[in-house]
Amino acid sequence: MAPKLYGTYYSLATAKAIAVMLEKEVDFELVRVSVKDGEHRKPEYLAKQPFGLVPLLEDEDLKLFESGAIMRYIADKYEAQGTPKLYGSTKAERALVEQWMEVEVGTWGAHMQVLVRELIFTPMLQKKPTNQQTVEDTKVKLQKVMDTYEAHLTKHQYLAGDFVSIADLVHLPVSYLILNEYGMPGLLSSRPRVAAWWEAITSRPSWKEIVKNSGADWESWVKAAKSFKPQ
Amino acid sequence: MAPKLYGTYYSLATAKAIAVMLEKEVDFELVRVSVKDGEHRKPEYLAKQPFGLVPLLEDEDLKLFESGAIMRYIADKYEAQGTPKLYGSTKAERALVEQWMEVEVGTWGAHMQVLVRELIFTPMLQKKPTNQQTVEDTKVKLQKVMDTYEAHLTKHQYLAGDFVSIADLVHLPVSYLILNEYGMPGLLSSRPRVAAWWEAITSRPSWKEIVKNSGADWESWVKAAKSFKPQ
Repeated sequence: MAPKLYGTYYSLATAKAIAVMLEKEVDFELVRVSVKDGEHRKPEYLAKQPFGLVPLLEDEDLKLFESGAIMRYIADKYEAQGTPKLYGSTKAERALVEQWMEVEVGTWGAHMQVLVRELIFTPMLQKKPTNQQTVEDTKVKLQKVMDTYEAHLTKHQYLAGDFVSIADLVHLPVSYLILNEYGMPGLLSSRPRVAAWWEAITSRPSWKEIVKNSGADWESWVKAAKSFKPQ
Repeated sequence: MAPKLYGTYYSLATAKAIAVMLEKEVDFELVRVSVKDGEHRKPEYLAKQPFGLVPLLEDEDLKLFESGAIMRYIADKYEAQGTPKLYGSTKAERALVEQWMEVEVGTWGAHMQVLVRELIFTPMLQKKPTNQQTVEDTKVKLQKVMDTYEAHLTKHQYLAGDFVSIADLVHLPVSYLILNEYGMPGLLSSRPRVAAWWEAITSRPSWKEIVKNSGADWESWVKAAKSFKPQ
């Protein structure tokens, strides 16, 4: 039976899992969970995912949540098909994939998450104005992180080496939202290696498919966020 | 040649890596990096760890940073020795280990990190008073997370199943500092399964060894933090 992935294309966390499904050419079923309608808080969903979050993967007897865990599991289980080496092919390569997965969570992605919170969630959900100082401070921190990436990507085409991996893909959804929708080209334009890497991963068919299928949902969501005026 | 781990016993992130080294009975060399003296910011260290953080692992040609990546690599490479199943023994078990590793980073551990920041780093390093409201709000969030753990641990002895894993060990350093040094017994006492799990993992010889070797450094560090009076 095909694995079932609960979530939506435009959920940032779910998009990470979908990216790996598409890269590994997995025949999966996407079960739509409308976060807007609170479906992730219903008892039947909470029985499977006690924290009430998407995505959730059901694969035979396994119920698995946390997008990073799903990415690793799919890359591991379907190692022999689709894009090769997505999780590395030696213990050392896999370790470097893990290293950059963790850097995304704790450093690059953490700063991007602050920008998402300040630019989108704070005004839209909490009805408070964006703290511009936090945005500026975070951009300064992000510039330093990007300088380290620039130096690293001078030596390697992708983060874990000369092969695209889940460590690259995990950067996509949150950073795409900020870099693409919020127009911060200065973050990339002065760093040619980061810009080339970003172009390489955002132009992959898997990511294009996700953007296309997020479609109206994502656009209307971003549009609503950007035009929101706190009272 | 024995792997070299750069850090100190009392560094919270390094302690995660050491816990796995001890569980897997790895003959490793600990290379002391004094964060207090800024040794992590020296050029020769930055050449190996460009973000200037501990721990860093050197194992033959591999230079590896991020404590979560080091934990996974050691558990994987030394699978055949020491405590069995530390990373699971099937793809499904490993996936559940990954799931709870991620829950620690994003949920349980994230709240504990806020408490460490407010109770220790904000007063000690930033010379600002603790925001008691943030502490109280975080404790409420943590209680909810712990309720989910309590329900889960009613069905399983450890997080990923009935075997201790790196997902359990990753919880230790930050949470031990808060629960042991900052006296928050209420967080555990009303949750017998969480309390039993916590007792099981903190009484492991590996963790006792880490606490013992953090010794004077950790105690003086915590004592300084607790007695600090912001000007």
